[in-house]
Amino acid sequence: MTTLPSRPSVAGLSGERFRVVYHLFGSEAEAHAKAMDICLEQTVEFPADLVPAGDIQDSIVGQIESLQAIGPDHYEAIISYANETGGSEFPQLLNVIFGNISIKAGIRVIRLDLSPTLLEAYRGPRFGQQGWRDLLGVQDRPLLMTALKPMGLSAKDLAYIAYECALGGLDIIKDDHGLANQPFAPYQERVERCAEAVAKANAQTGLKCQYMPNVTAPADQIVTRAGVAKQAGAGSLLICPGLTGFDSLRQLADDETIALPIASHPSFYGSLVTSPQNGFSHYALYGQLQRLMGADSSIYPNFGGRFAFSQAECESIVAGCHDPMGHFKPIFPTPGGGMSMANIPQMKAVYGNQVMYLVGGGLHRHSDDLTANARHFIEMIAS
Amino acid sequence: MTTLPSRPSVAGLSGERFRVVYHLFGSEAEAHAKAMDICLEQTVEFPADLVPAGDIQDSIVGQIESLQAIGPDHYEAIISYANETGGSEFPQLLNVIFGNISIKAGIRVIRLDLSPTLLEAYRGPRFGQQGWRDLLGVQDRPLLMTALKPMGLSAKDLAYIAYECALGGLDIIKDDHGLANQPFAPYQERVERCAEAVAKANAQTGLKCQYMPNVTAPADQIVTRAGVAKQAGAGSLLICPGLTGFDSLRQLADDETIALPIASHPSFYGSLVTSPQNGFSHYALYGQLQRLMGADSSIYPNFGGRFAFSQAECESIVAGCHDPMGHFKPIFPTPGGGMSMANIPQMKAVYGNQVMYLVGGGLHRHSDDLTANARHFIEMIAS
Repeated sequence: MTTLPSRPSVAGLSGERFRVVYHLFGSEAEAHAKAMDICLEQTVEFPADLVPAGDIQDSIVGQIESLQAIGPDHYEAIISYANETGGSEFPQLLNVIFGNISIKAGIRVIRLDLSPTLLEAYRGPRFGQQGWRDLLGVQDRPLLMTALKPMGLSAKDLAYIAYECALGGLDIIKDDHGLANQPFAPYQERVERCAEAVAKANAQTGLKCQYMPNVTAPADQIVTRAGVAKQAGAGSLLICPGLTGFDSLRQLADDETIALPIASHPSFYGSLVTSPQNGFSHYALYGQLQRLMGADSSIYPNFGGRFAFSQAECESIVAGCHDPMGHFKPIFPTPGGGMSMANIPQMKAVYGNQVMYLVGGGLHRHSDDLTANARHFIEMIAS
Repeated sequence: MTTLPSRPSVAGLSGERFRVVYHLFGSEAEAHAKAMDICLEQTVEFPADLVPAGDIQDSIVGQIESLQAIGPDHYEAIISYANETGGSEFPQLLNVIFGNISIKAGIRVIRLDLSPTLLEAYRGPRFGQQGWRDLLGVQDRPLLMTALKPMGLSAKDLAYIAYECALGGLDIIKDDHGLANQPFAPYQERVERCAEAVAKANAQTGLKCQYMPNVTAPADQIVTRAGVAKQAGAGSLLICPGLTGFDSLRQLADDETIALPIASHPSFYGSLVTSPQNGFSHYALYGQLQRLMGADSSIYPNFGGRFAFSQAECESIVAGCHDPMGHFKPIFPTPGGGMSMANIPQMKAVYGNQVMYLVGGGLHRHSDDLTANARHFIEMIAS
């Protein structure tokens, strides 16, 4: 071959496309330019006038399906992409949705509308709400999780807290997400002691409380740590995909040798939502993307706590966790951060039953007796 | 044990601390509250009044080393953390630096000042500028890289472009970062064809042009793909740590069986810099963090191109790639995006010699003869 075809045909195109809803900020002309830019930047990354005619221009380049004003200097664009641009690989799908354009201000991903074939390419949450409830044997009230903290305690002290909380009837006792493999509470010792403590409490209560270790770890150790956790009797796993990469959660959820429910913690990627004209909507990040990764629970900061999420943003997260999405199971929205006895009634009114609450420091505040505190919290959310 | 110690001692504390420089936005009272909040949120994640006295309060909780106004509603805080909070694991180090507080607006990481022990725990860039130059046999001019595009071309067509560019004397020919494992140019076929094409050109020119495949892939396939690349004769690797997770790059760089120079592409994590009061400084994200990951080249959008980085921001990236940082080698700042023949003189004035330029679409614009275009670009940057 001595030259490039002028109209290269693209092999393997199915004709099926997926859609992404973006919000664009600026004047009408700017919004139009941004929409055009997204179509190129997220796919061919090539000057428009140099894109070869034929399949590449007609199918590979993103297409503006609609563009309309929804407020002053605020536009909604729906852009479609050929399935094959993202393929069945999650990192590349993320790249098409929000790769280079993440570096351009005034573009926010609002909602993913994936095609049937793409949805089928991902397993999604292995357990979802119902599967996790079945493991816990709790069907008719919100679930309640706490976190082992503060960092610096020994594995033995953390196991003591785990025991006390499990005795009080909490459903899940997770590692604080800052517990990794530090010298004061090394991973293996912590996991074995805490799993044993929770099992001991379960033997007394007859309940099925789960210990949930944090497997956020170096890339090559995540699955190994999950194996250690499973071996020790942990009932579920915690991971921070902002720290490990979104596809690490996907890999963990897909692993048949692990097969435990997974909670996803929002550490590190807050910048994806803090600026309202950039990044992702709460719905897409804490809802849809978590289900794509395969998380069974999406932890996020509750409204009214020490973070700035609004009630409406939290309600949109609930929708992102619950809304129909192909074969993907609904997962537990898991509001945490600043929960106290005082705001439980308000939370019940907003969240209803299909929720997993995370109470951390608040559990330690009520009294020195963690078991009594745990019982009290459970009673309040069940009543 | 029937209770927790009131002053728990923390095992394994060395007494050494590392520092993070944050910029805080708001009033003086707000800045002070944010600094206090960072100290707790990034470590014990526990209400201040409930933190146990002793080692946890004295060492595990972050400490405000300084807090000063540097502009209206703009403060600089230096906060130190015990080495052991972050440990020698990169995801947890990131978690301490910018975990939960990523979800709070008005906090930006400006600079990392890691302790000697922490720096020693990371290998950093395996090649750095000098090591990579030695492999290429080019010592005295900026390096020049291009990207194979547009997406949709077959492996055969991409290999043809690679051949033409290598013949023209380019130093590195990388996959466009959107080339993953799509049906139109499957990874293995593409890598074998492109590596072969570049080797063929090298045999003619006597140069050591490198083909650099994109190993951004599902978490469990990154190292495998890098092995395929090495086997095929690829000279270096491209990865997008925003898509794969920062620690995936670290793992790849540390892998003794791969041991190829790595370029890091900025896809997906632009939101970490687009809002000036959140996320990371350009210096920290595109400089320091890349070296911690082990990247030998940090790709970022050049000023004056189609992204909005300022010249000052780009110069700070150069500093982050070059500044002394323990044993870490200086790496190549790699400005790309919108480079053209026209702006080469300006880029030379700003960047000098210790830079790797990335020219994409611009290489295709000059004329239809890619080999001649490549030669012309090389001559211009070498003159």
